[in-house]
Amino acid sequence: MTENQQIVLDNRPQGEATTSNFKLLHTQTPELKDNEVLVRHHYLSLDPYMRGRMNESKSYAVPQPLGEVMIGATVGEVVESRHPKFNPGDKVVGMGGWQLYSLVDGNAISNGMLRKVDTTHVSLSYYLGAVGMPGVTAWYGLVKIINPKAGETVTVSAASGAVGSAYGALAKARGCRVVGIAGGKDKCDYVVNELGFDACIDYKEHKDYISLSKALREACPNGIDGHFENVGGMVLDAVMLRTNAFARIAVCGMIAGYDGAPIGMTNPALILVNRMRVEGFIVSEHMEVWPEALQELGNLVGSGKLRPRETVAQGLAAAPEAFLGLLKGKNFGKQLVKLI
Amino acid sequence: MTENQQIVLDNRPQGEATTSNFKLLHTQTPELKDNEVLVRHHYLSLDPYMRGRMNESKSYAVPQPLGEVMIGATVGEVVESRHPKFNPGDKVVGMGGWQLYSLVDGNAISNGMLRKVDTTHVSLSYYLGAVGMPGVTAWYGLVKIINPKAGETVTVSAASGAVGSAYGALAKARGCRVVGIAGGKDKCDYVVNELGFDACIDYKEHKDYISLSKALREACPNGIDGHFENVGGMVLDAVMLRTNAFARIAVCGMIAGYDGAPIGMTNPALILVNRMRVEGFIVSEHMEVWPEALQELGNLVGSGKLRPRETVAQGLAAAPEAFLGLLKGKNFGKQLVKLI
Repeated sequence: MTENQQIVLDNRPQGEATTSNFKLLHTQTPELKDNEVLVRHHYLSLDPYMRGRMNESKSYAVPQPLGEVMIGATVGEVVESRHPKFNPGDKVVGMGGWQLYSLVDGNAISNGMLRKVDTTHVSLSYYLGAVGMPGVTAWYGLVKIINPKAGETVTVSAASGAVGSAYGALAKARGCRVVGIAGGKDKCDYVVNELGFDACIDYKEHKDYISLSKALREACPNGIDGHFENVGGMVLDAVMLRTNAFARIAVCGMIAGYDGAPIGMTNPALILVNRMRVEGFIVSEHMEVWPEALQELGNLVGSGKLRPRETVAQGLAAAPEAFLGLLKGKNFGKQLVKLI
Repeated sequence: MTENQQIVLDNRPQGEATTSNFKLLHTQTPELKDNEVLVRHHYLSLDPYMRGRMNESKSYAVPQPLGEVMIGATVGEVVESRHPKFNPGDKVVGMGGWQLYSLVDGNAISNGMLRKVDTTHVSLSYYLGAVGMPGVTAWYGLVKIINPKAGETVTVSAASGAVGSAYGALAKARGCRVVGIAGGKDKCDYVVNELGFDACIDYKEHKDYISLSKALREACPNGIDGHFENVGGMVLDAVMLRTNAFARIAVCGMIAGYDGAPIGMTNPALILVNRMRVEGFIVSEHMEVWPEALQELGNLVGSGKLRPRETVAQGLAAAPEAFLGLLKGKNFGKQLVKLI
């Protein structure tokens, strides 16, 4: 029995999420039964999808239950094991949630929910970002939906984030011109200078999608053949105006308005005019691609071709505030919470 | 030399198209050179795509040149031939345009622009509709984009039209539940009683997409797996609300507002929530499927499983008025002009 800290969803947001939706509990880790493993978390991943889970409304995923530990991916170290395949000291990635320790049972282990990782060439925290779910998300959208040819131009919104940065490295590896869209000069400089994108556009400098679209025309002189959408709204409208015939758009994120009302697509007729394919996806429904994707992403990080940035909040109690900041784009690169 | 009549585009529409955009000319057919064929048109096809060609603005197709014969598909009979493969009396389908006679040269014939057809089991005019471009359009959207499994529910807007009616027969042949959306009780009755759709919804009875969507929920109790969009706007918004996970939408037509301004898509986030694929296409870019599609469509018509309705205007001079009526949905089934 070890002292644990846990953050649970205490109540659902009315409109915008706030720190008062969460509650920090002090608990004890349970005794291990056969085939169970106790993991001490080093890092917790904060991701936009968590906001959707906080609502009761029907979405593609079940809502986060009230009073239970918030869902979340974690990396850490096995501290106690009664499972034959895990030993204390093993570095692991799993879905440990917003807490210091998690107990993983034999069923979850059989289902691949706890995975040993090699930290020789890849830092442990990267398994939550570039070499984890966000990286595979970028890989799936680029490789399986956009499937670009060398020389094509591909774009991505939220380019400085965990998904966007992996997307850039993957697209460059395929000989594409890759153009990012991000919020603010610092992020755009980082996207070009450190991530190696060919160009990055600061959407905050544009008051509407027409203006943003003109900037895209300069950055994409041959038009846009593929786009990865993390945001929706003005950015997607602007990109659509610049698409070439047979462009592919992978839809991974779509914001809603302040009051939860949908934000429209201004000119869907462009889907016909440019014979586009617009496809939504959720990476957890495509587990078959993870091994191939993780291998390529690990190689890119190990060889220094993908140098992801992280924003690290310190301590579990800082998680709610950091999460709300993530939703507002205050993070720079992958948002983590350090738990040791 | 025979007396011909031709309708040319005299000037481009400012906003709505009017009959004054067109001009009727009396001309003579030219002398035939080697490898040329003279065709007497029996029917001219009127199709919505022609409206797009009347504009100067950039689209996927080149604009209709001013002063030249309006583009259009025709069926007719060879009356004179200096080409070894065609003989007087041959029934043919081609792109003869808005005129009584067309001269087809050897190059066009080599490119497959004039095709002999068999009228034993299929009336000549059907080669402009169910067993022509509109039929193949329905086939491509259903088979190549939606690709439904037996038991799935598929929908189509403008269900009583040439594309919609073929779509219904093709979907029934694949064991689908097929639900149409059309304007007015007469059209909806026809769609169910004569075309064999499982249900048809009159969009004119609904003031907004929410209301239309509720009617769709009743007609599609298991949700919508595939949709063929001929219209856009309110219908598409309503359908999207009822889509199942992994729904496919084939986009073939999208209206614009009165002033040419785009009409938006209300809730594009549904593309992500339901992991949809939305794909625009133009059937003339997929000539490789025509033989297979035409064979199936010919069999459906020949066996009486597809009984298309036609609205026939009499005489070339009636074409402009009939075309404007088509744009307003005044036709019932395939809009033709009889030229003999």
